[in-house]
Amino acid sequence: MHIPTTTLLLSLSIAAVASAGLDKPGQFRRLGACPDMGCIFPPDRAHFIAGAKFDVRVEVHAEGSTSPNPKYTLQIQKLDQAHTSTSTDNNDDYNPKYQRRFARANSPPQDFSTFLDAKPSPQETWNFTYFKDAAAYWKARDGDTTTATPVNVVSTAWRQVQLLDPGTYQVTLQYDSGKTTEALWTVDPAPTTRKAKNVILFIGDGMTTAMITAARLLSKPHSSGHYLQKLHLDQFPVLGHVMTHSLDSLITDSANSASAYNTGHKSSVNALGVYPDSSPDPFDDPKQELLAELMRRRSKKLGGRGGVGIVTTADVWDATPAAVFSHTRRRDEGARIIDQMIRGPTAVVADVYMGGGGNKFHGNKGGESLNGTDYYAAYEKERGYKVVHDKASMLTYEGDGPLLGIFHAGNMNVWLDRNVYKHNLNSPGSSPLGGDASALDQPNLDQMVIKGLEVLDRRYRKEGWFMMAEAAAVDIMMHPLDYDRALADLLELDSTVGKTKAWLKRQGLDKDTLIIVTADHGHSFDVYGSVDTQYFNSFESEQDLEKKNSIGTYEFSGWPSYVDADGDGFPDEWDVQYTLAAGTVAFPSHREDFQVNINGSRVPAVAQGNSHHHYSEYVPNPGDNVHGGIMKAGTLKAEANNGVHSFQDVPLFAMGPGSEAFAGVMDNTEVFHKIAQALGLGGK
Amino acid sequence: MHIPTTTLLLSLSIAAVASAGLDKPGQFRRLGACPDMGCIFPPDRAHFIAGAKFDVRVEVHAEGSTSPNPKYTLQIQKLDQAHTSTSTDNNDDYNPKYQRRFARANSPPQDFSTFLDAKPSPQETWNFTYFKDAAAYWKARDGDTTTATPVNVVSTAWRQVQLLDPGTYQVTLQYDSGKTTEALWTVDPAPTTRKAKNVILFIGDGMTTAMITAARLLSKPHSSGHYLQKLHLDQFPVLGHVMTHSLDSLITDSANSASAYNTGHKSSVNALGVYPDSSPDPFDDPKQELLAELMRRRSKKLGGRGGVGIVTTADVWDATPAAVFSHTRRRDEGARIIDQMIRGPTAVVADVYMGGGGNKFHGNKGGESLNGTDYYAAYEKERGYKVVHDKASMLTYEGDGPLLGIFHAGNMNVWLDRNVYKHNLNSPGSSPLGGDASALDQPNLDQMVIKGLEVLDRRYRKEGWFMMAEAAAVDIMMHPLDYDRALADLLELDSTVGKTKAWLKRQGLDKDTLIIVTADHGHSFDVYGSVDTQYFNSFESEQDLEKKNSIGTYEFSGWPSYVDADGDGFPDEWDVQYTLAAGTVAFPSHREDFQVNINGSRVPAVAQGNSHHHYSEYVPNPGDNVHGGIMKAGTLKAEANNGVHSFQDVPLFAMGPGSEAFAGVMDNTEVFHKIAQALGLGGK
Repeated sequence: MHIPTTTLLLSLSIAAVASAGLDKPGQFRRLGACPDMGCIFPPDRAHFIAGAKFDVRVEVHAEGSTSPNPKYTLQIQKLDQAHTSTSTDNNDDYNPKYQRRFARANSPPQDFSTFLDAKPSPQETWNFTYFKDAAAYWKARDGDTTTATPVNVVSTAWRQVQLLDPGTYQVTLQYDSGKTTEALWTVDPAPTTRKAKNVILFIGDGMTTAMITAARLLSKPHSSGHYLQKLHLDQFPVLGHVMTHSLDSLITDSANSASAYNTGHKSSVNALGVYPDSSPDPFDDPKQELLAELMRRRSKKLGGRGGVGIVTTADVWDATPAAVFSHTRRRDEGARIIDQMIRGPTAVVADVYMGGGGNKFHGNKGGESLNGTDYYAAYEKERGYKVVHDKASMLTYEGDGPLLGIFHAGNMNVWLDRNVYKHNLNSPGSSPLGGDASALDQPNLDQMVIKGLEVLDRRYRKEGWFMMAEAAAVDIMMHPLDYDRALADLLELDSTVGKTKAWLKRQGLDKDTLIIVTADHGHSFDVYGSVDTQYFNSFESEQDLEKKNSIGTYEFSGWPSYVDADGDGFPDEWDVQYTLAAGTVAFPSHREDFQVNINGSRVPAVAQGNSHHHYSEYVPNPGDNVHGGIMKAGTLKAEANNGVHSFQDVPLFAMGPGSEAFAGVMDNTEVFHKIAQALGLGGK
Repeated sequence: MHIPTTTLLLSLSIAAVASAGLDKPGQFRRLGACPDMGCIFPPDRAHFIAGAKFDVRVEVHAEGSTSPNPKYTLQIQKLDQAHTSTSTDNNDDYNPKYQRRFARANSPPQDFSTFLDAKPSPQETWNFTYFKDAAAYWKARDGDTTTATPVNVVSTAWRQVQLLDPGTYQVTLQYDSGKTTEALWTVDPAPTTRKAKNVILFIGDGMTTAMITAARLLSKPHSSGHYLQKLHLDQFPVLGHVMTHSLDSLITDSANSASAYNTGHKSSVNALGVYPDSSPDPFDDPKQELLAELMRRRSKKLGGRGGVGIVTTADVWDATPAAVFSHTRRRDEGARIIDQMIRGPTAVVADVYMGGGGNKFHGNKGGESLNGTDYYAAYEKERGYKVVHDKASMLTYEGDGPLLGIFHAGNMNVWLDRNVYKHNLNSPGSSPLGGDASALDQPNLDQMVIKGLEVLDRRYRKEGWFMMAEAAAVDIMMHPLDYDRALADLLELDSTVGKTKAWLKRQGLDKDTLIIVTADHGHSFDVYGSVDTQYFNSFESEQDLEKKNSIGTYEFSGWPSYVDADGDGFPDEWDVQYTLAAGTVAFPSHREDFQVNINGSRVPAVAQGNSHHHYSEYVPNPGDNVHGGIMKAGTLKAEANNGVHSFQDVPLFAMGPGSEAFAGVMDNTEVFHKIAQALGLGGK
């Protein structure tokens, strides 16, 4: 497979280096990380910590009925220009006038397998199809079978390699008799000191600055426009902004953004801990070593193991929690992800694993576990987990073993339904054990986090630990435009952060523990005034013009009616006269009444047939229209039934040892590197 | 007027202190800072720097045909509880369970005039009307003359008082035989050291984090989703978030938010450097001493004067520039504001004053100056200004005197029209000198700022200076949803920041100069994907369903087509195939085509009559519909013709001496205090 490269070396001139391309415009692409017909994963601008393990794959593509040339080489060359931080820290390494980056190499390129002393896998072949643009895609959606472009692939992979020598590397794929694809890789020195013993990474999934502004206004007292109390988030000493773009698109999902935090590598929508290749198998994609894997592997060498805790209010196999330990191209492989936790190939067996998602753990009625296996039993038997299914059992657990808490068949109910509109918990089939029972005794996020911290502290006070805790329903409720439920879950996150800080202080761990609170992406939520709902409701449905006069802006926005008189951090009443005039930029067609949905989370739009097209069109849900909401014509494709993510930089709050590194604007991949630095991870 | 207070003193118990209220819900209010029928300005939670001068006013109101009791007293009492920072820094001074703040006083209340050794003005009376709620307001808008509520007022003012002793003061208005209104005031110690010799405050008017994300994506190269260059803003070491609420509403305008930055006091919509009272005169409202006034007054005592520079791309009398020097209840009093600059009562005569707004300077054709005065001549004659009206004259000015540069009759043209679509500069009547000429030779923001810095440096290298420079059209172009023009002006701000940093370094001033870049408020702009405009335009107008299929989200958002190949910090082409799927939350009814408006700034909606109501309804502007945009039904009252501000916290970037104080979340009033601290302002 590896042809002699000497004859090709001369072509590797400055011009060749300069040809490494920038991201190309367009919506549809053959494969995310492929700049051309030759692909290298990890791609251009990948950034490693010295000693982190990773897989490498190259693919060569040929479109149509042609086959790709199976002869290609991969070479690697260390460059002499120092480049020890991510490119985004530094404007000097790129001159747009010349599109030239690194001029000279300090040694000739070497064969990749030789340089890394790594054995490639046998060459593989497969094929796939893609659409070149929106015109081709939508023709196919309407039944035209001629618009997809077939691609034939040859590929080679190298598994579990390491780069130990810090610096910048140029990796070059030579294929198809003289064509090249290049990638610059940067390897940072492994940190020599450990600043933080413990790290807690709180993720407010989908949380933006505007949502924080709203959550504060709902819950904190103010006089003459001055807040007398602030959120716990507001009191963090260090603030950063995180850029969230994907490897191959300006909008990320929760999978590849959480993956960036856990690996230091960008990826594509739906991918966890891998660079997506084009093969059909969702488990053969080139893997990146995870923070928790690195921590476990490294701390073993250092004599301890290091604890890992994962807490979420979503399914425990959902993107954000799974990104801590899983490797797969497809985040929806929940049953396999649950299997990975205890049987690998992940190197993480979490000490604390709590949230929803029970139906993928069992084969009872409603169950969808892998091969019908009882994973509750498997977790207990194979890995010694204490398994609990309700708040009461969780709160009383005082053992030394790891803790699995699964409290719902799917995503846990949101704070507003767990604590205010409790009648919505009555939902046959929501029990994590299957059958027709409801999950009536679900813990709140703060209870799961504090219990999880107790377990980690008992098991690893000496060695330290890493916890990821997610307020998942900020995102889950922003999608259907249920702003009340989303903001309540944001307030639950803030309250949890406050209680966590107090717990750490009581345990004497506050000086040892880095706390980060951030989001993985945003939604385009904002508030532009207030609504007098009494006035709004005084008009009949369809009287949109008059209803809109209930919206006050500027001086007539005044103040909403929410009050937290009992001081629990949440408004005492949610169904109030003066609410927020809130909305998003991206939504399906729906009607908006600006009022809390008392009988469960919102469903803004429903499908109807479409006589002109094969796909459905979503229209306002009549059941969402209790108060005759004003019409909002959709800003998404007609078949969208929910809002979508936005691209704005998300806020990051940090405190504790190592927090100073998080000030200012950073890429999402840098969050990984800053945490790794604080924990002193990396090295062989 | 001042009745004996001894008999009332006993009632000033803990209970009375506890009654100081929180902001009340509702959209319509009698007067912003009035918690009840008795009003104190400055109101509850006002925060001063020791030695700052301020006016005080009390009002007593009676509604309907009754008259207010003219007997009232104002008392002040210093409290023994330390309270030396803004309330928003501290959660401990407020317990929502008890609604009690300060329990004990260290001395009995004293008569306000006696305590401050200040003489009150003669008692005044007047009346006004207001609407109690939306129902009353909209009935009146449709012709019902019975729904307004009349109010009769008695009032007393104390002008130009000072509090020199740091601490917390309770101020109590006793009125109407036993009723009380209370206000807690906090006085910070005057700083004893000066950290920064110079301060530059850049305001991106209306700028949010999402807009920064968009501006970066339009202009910076990236590979595999990693930026190879970042914005200048992205490279600031300190990041903060600013809470922007008004004194009396959750949404601010540019006036009262800029006023907060320049005074440390919140105010109401349209107000500059004053607390709005209810009197009809827009120039008698209680004033707050401005940062520039304090600097001039203090530095005189210290032997120098200190320079002040004001640069904007809007009218120079517009809210953000006027907030640096003016005091008025009404920001639209442009002609009077221009008069104030050279004739007072402001204590600031700026050394640099540049932007648009020429028609308020002269009485020529198109002119609207105060009494037809030629203010160009007056500025030159009375205050020694060099007056210039075009870029060429400005760039060649090398004199020692102050510089007035007025380059347009109204707001200056935006960057995109000044530099790309220059045919839009041909607009008869846009000359700053009046008549029918066009303003064809307008400078860019960076040119005005660097020239302004040169003037300040020549005049005050020893004493130091303060410059406020505004990129005004981020806001001005967000209002009509002209995102391209808004983002180009944000990029112009970023470029200006970069050039300013380079200039400071060349002059050896970088170590002495605090740079702050922030916004005064936001707009609800965000981006949720990309648009294939070629596919969009391939469908006829009104084919909304098909047109929306050109919007790509998540993995199909890909990358837009903007490229900055010439490295000037702006995209080379603006009319590209793949654009951003952008929008806002708050808009009039309009149609959206996601494409740049080549022939001038956008006008999204036009008025049409409305048979059911006296007011107009705005509908999509057919002239805005070049590519048959998709319908977006308005989310504002029907008579809104433009987008409106949003409430999200805005980003603040800081670098240089004193910048560390700006990390984290702060109130907009705190920005003033942090700048004053850095400059060492305050004291008698």
